[in-house]
Amino acid sequence: MGQVAWKGLFLSLFDYKTEKYVIAKNKKVGILYRVVQLSILAYLVGWVFVVKKGYQDTDTSLQSSVITKLKGVAFTNTSELGERLWDVADYVIPPQGENVFFVMTNLIVTPNQRQATCPEAVAALCDHFCAVCAAGVKTGRCLKERDSIRGTCEILAWCPVEKRSKPKKPLLASAENFTVYIKNSIRFPKFKFSKMNVLATDNESYLKSCRYSTEHPYCPIFLLGNIVRWAGSDFHEMALEGGVIGIQIEWNCDLDKAPSECNPHYSFSRLDNKFAEKSISSGYNFRFAKYYRDADGVDYRTLFKAYGIRFDVMVNGKAGKFNIIPTVINIGSGLALMGAGAFFCDLVLLYLIKKSNFYRGKKYEEVK
Amino acid sequence: MGQVAWKGLFLSLFDYKTEKYVIAKNKKVGILYRVVQLSILAYLVGWVFVVKKGYQDTDTSLQSSVITKLKGVAFTNTSELGERLWDVADYVIPPQGENVFFVMTNLIVTPNQRQATCPEAVAALCDHFCAVCAAGVKTGRCLKERDSIRGTCEILAWCPVEKRSKPKKPLLASAENFTVYIKNSIRFPKFKFSKMNVLATDNESYLKSCRYSTEHPYCPIFLLGNIVRWAGSDFHEMALEGGVIGIQIEWNCDLDKAPSECNPHYSFSRLDNKFAEKSISSGYNFRFAKYYRDADGVDYRTLFKAYGIRFDVMVNGKAGKFNIIPTVINIGSGLALMGAGAFFCDLVLLYLIKKSNFYRGKKYEEVK
Amino acid sequence: MGQVAWKGLFLSLFDYKTEKYVIAKNKKVGILYRVVQLSILAYLVGWVFVVKKGYQDTDTSLQSSVITKLKGVAFTNTSELGERLWDVADYVIPPQGENVFFVMTNLIVTPNQRQATCPEAVAALCDHFCAVCAAGVKTGRCLKERDSIRGTCEILAWCPVEKRSKPKKPLLASAENFTVYIKNSIRFPKFKFSKMNVLATDNESYLKSCRYSTEHPYCPIFLLGNIVRWAGSDFHEMALEGGVIGIQIEWNCDLDKAPSECNPHYSFSRLDNKFAEKSISSGYNFRFAKYYRDADGVDYRTLFKAYGIRFDVMVNGKAGKFNIIPTVINIGSGLALMGAGAFFCDLVLLYLIKKSNFYRGKKYEEVK
Repeated sequence: MGQVAWKGLFLSLFDYKTEKYVIAKNKKVGILYRVVQLSILAYLVGWVFVVKKGYQDTDTSLQSSVITKLKGVAFTNTSELGERLWDVADYVIPPQGENVFFVMTNLIVTPNQRQATCPEAVAALCDHFCAVCAAGVKTGRCLKERDSIRGTCEILAWCPVEKRSKPKKPLLASAENFTVYIKNSIRFPKFKFSKMNVLATDNESYLKSCRYSTEHPYCPIFLLGNIVRWAGSDFHEMALEGGVIGIQIEWNCDLDKAPSECNPHYSFSRLDNKFAEKSISSGYNFRFAKYYRDADGVDYRTLFKAYGIRFDVMVNGKAGKFNIIPTVINIGSGLALMGAGAFFCDLVLLYLIKKSNFYRGKKYEEVK
Repeated sequence: MGQVAWKGLFLSLFDYKTEKYVIAKNKKVGILYRVVQLSILAYLVGWVFVVKKGYQDTDTSLQSSVITKLKGVAFTNTSELGERLWDVADYVIPPQGENVFFVMTNLIVTPNQRQATCPEAVAALCDHFCAVCAAGVKTGRCLKERDSIRGTCEILAWCPVEKRSKPKKPLLASAENFTVYIKNSIRFPKFKFSKMNVLATDNESYLKSCRYSTEHPYCPIFLLGNIVRWAGSDFHEMALEGGVIGIQIEWNCDLDKAPSECNPHYSFSRLDNKFAEKSISSGYNFRFAKYYRDADGVDYRTLFKAYGIRFDVMVNGKAGKFNIIPTVINIGSGLALMGAGAFFCDLVLLYLIKKSNFYRGKKYEEVK
Repeated sequence: MGQVAWKGLFLSLFDYKTEKYVIAKNKKVGILYRVVQLSILAYLVGWVFVVKKGYQDTDTSLQSSVITKLKGVAFTNTSELGERLWDVADYVIPPQGENVFFVMTNLIVTPNQRQATCPEAVAALCDHFCAVCAAGVKTGRCLKERDSIRGTCEILAWCPVEKRSKPKKPLLASAENFTVYIKNSIRFPKFKFSKMNVLATDNESYLKSCRYSTEHPYCPIFLLGNIVRWAGSDFHEMALEGGVIGIQIEWNCDLDKAPSECNPHYSFSRLDNKFAEKSISSGYNFRFAKYYRDADGVDYRTLFKAYGIRFDVMVNGKAGKFNIIPTVINIGSGLALMGAGAFFCDLVLLYLIKKSNFYRGKKYEEVK
């Protein structure tokens, strides 16, 4: 041994060792193997790389900021409220233009409520010893009309209590013609890529007058009536009972292309359960109050039960950019699959054809 | 060369070439290799495919919309406010039922504040030349009582300023019995799959009377007291100091199964730091004001420092569906691992056993 | 056949079959192959495992809850409002401290609006037969001054209508010195890992007096002026026209290390389009109203057009933890790549060198 042996060992490191193959001149298995190879190659190139962009690293957790701004006025003339004009400050809740906003379209007003005792709204229930009192606290007294068996619980509450009936037609049906301007800034943190849905245009007047439609897919101003229609609902019915509409903004960006090709795609859907008609899970309303103080310093309030359409702007997206790791993973797994294809063809060659015994002897060299 | 040669080359494309193997009749290494193969197969089938569902493509970026609705009234009788009834419009902020809502349980009221000058709340600090004035702007004067060394800064502020002490017991302790109805619509954009947490049931009365519990895991109505208890906190303590509770809704859906098997799982946790007692990072409160105008057109306000429980409904989820790409990647990497197993067994055969020299000579065919 | 044959077959299962290799004593190809092997190994170990942590499973869908609390008072003295002090309850909208909050810095107040008829704000447009009336509904009458050709539409609206001019300098320029305290709780649901951005410190006074800066990267209290400056904007300009600032909190956690090494990283950016000066897409403002009721029970309101800075706290993050599946996938695809390297070296050996014919004959053993 010694120096010479070590040198030999070192040099043998640079001998190239290559697998020995046996050529089986069997066209059937040969063609089968080529077909398998081509299928895997087609899958790898066609499906994984071209269609699914398997060479890209993807980021689906985007940061998003939404600014919304409504425009429009409505005029109503009801016996209760008289002639009244409704502007943005009246019907948008909350006013600050976040990604979730509510447009009031219907209203049950209970003015001048004060802390006092009064009969409960639902008369029939007093039989049950005033068991159910949703709006206030029972005083224990039962307010019966003379000669009547049934009566009404007396409650301590904001009085008078709200009456249960709602108008038969929406108050602000003309909300259909209001517009909403949606500004959406997104950022894919993994790729440090930012964009807005508002086009960087010189044409200011376009952005003031355009309306989103299939012809104007990048206009950020939407007609409320259109949004509701595209979501598959009837504006009149939604304005009456309330409801929730989702405005989905989808960013599907291939960052290997120019940034200008990364554009939002809008879609609209109804989010409260519209099928369950008159069920507990359809419609949308909530109560709020405006508080006043009279000359004597006593608080009173006007209770509003607001029906309307809540719009949830939901942004999601996916960005892809070339990255070596998913590329290698996909190529590697495709190659490994080729090995599996060879294994399958071996099975055919060694066990399923006529001369399999002969090939088995040739492929496997027995050593003793 | 010419036609014949090209034909021969073309035909040889369809010769099947298969690796030549040497059979080493060594049972030890043979068994070792089978054990390695079986382990990899067990890992691949058992862990990757059965447990981790490696044949599925997953989507973790879901779109979610949450509607919340509170129910319940509370009656209080304090020296400050007298007999008073609190309903939803009084204690829920904001009223519109979004995914983050706040239930007021405690209150410091500072009524009839007007823009004026008045002494600062914290008397002792005036020594420091009125250096710290949180509630207003110093006028520079120091309001000292006669014979006193210490004094109080005069400030221009909303006067009178808020007093610092808070009640010893929560005002709306009965908020424990309020209920919240949580409607959650989700959508996995990658699979175009939508669902709601409210069961599509015919039984309307069930949805009106049920309460979420381990026995009713799909009832969307929660008792506030239960939520707080499940989050590991004490309602009474939280109602006094305020706090934030997270309501996690987790959707873990296997879309290879029926949609009815995709159900939400609720969990509850405390989000403000409850351990750091009386620290800056525990508790939850904020200030807001109601503005009034007196007969002379002068604005005044009532300042509220509201303590209470903020509930953050947080939705996350994961959906998986069979997809060929992750399946191939997992199978491919498993097969590649088999190659690594063979490499390891080769090392044993060629260097670690007695007859390794003999096998080495047989495996490697030297060519000169 | 029979028992003996079956036994033979069973035993042969435990024969170890190993590929037969041909040693080509060609140093060039040998060295080439070693270089390819080393490159793949370096890529796999260096890039995939050390840099990209390919042995980790990652979770990017985190749950986050944000609590914000502003501090600061501002004093203004204008001809319109007189001496006035602004505190948190006055300038923060909404008050409840969510992840999106708005600090009012500028204001157009239109006091004592009532439902009535009055001339429209923009006089010149009446020529167009009152075609454009943004603030109300046209009555049809045109209010012309004597001898004038142009006139003003009469509208039914909240009168008087808002005047269009905005102040030349921001009302609450001192908002620059306000501070915001941001509490952020996160949870990675896949790893059941929770953390807060507020340090678990004994030092309460540090958390009360610190200010976030590069020297204090874990202090959760931010000066508004600093946030705007770090976002690359001018506070004075933003306070005048309004704008939206994104506060990004990024959690990049290696959960194989100690939890204390998982810390947030803050960054700041402007989200409305600041480049498009005076364009429709820059600035931020909204209208809201405070409603009053006079002694006769008639509603009137004060309309505010609020300009200011909206802050969007956006949280995203990524957590990684060792997991066997991605490890195997990355090792497997690396190994498969080694196979591709061998295939490439084979091509060189069999077709590109002088003695390639000889090696081809040795590698492929023809069987007839």
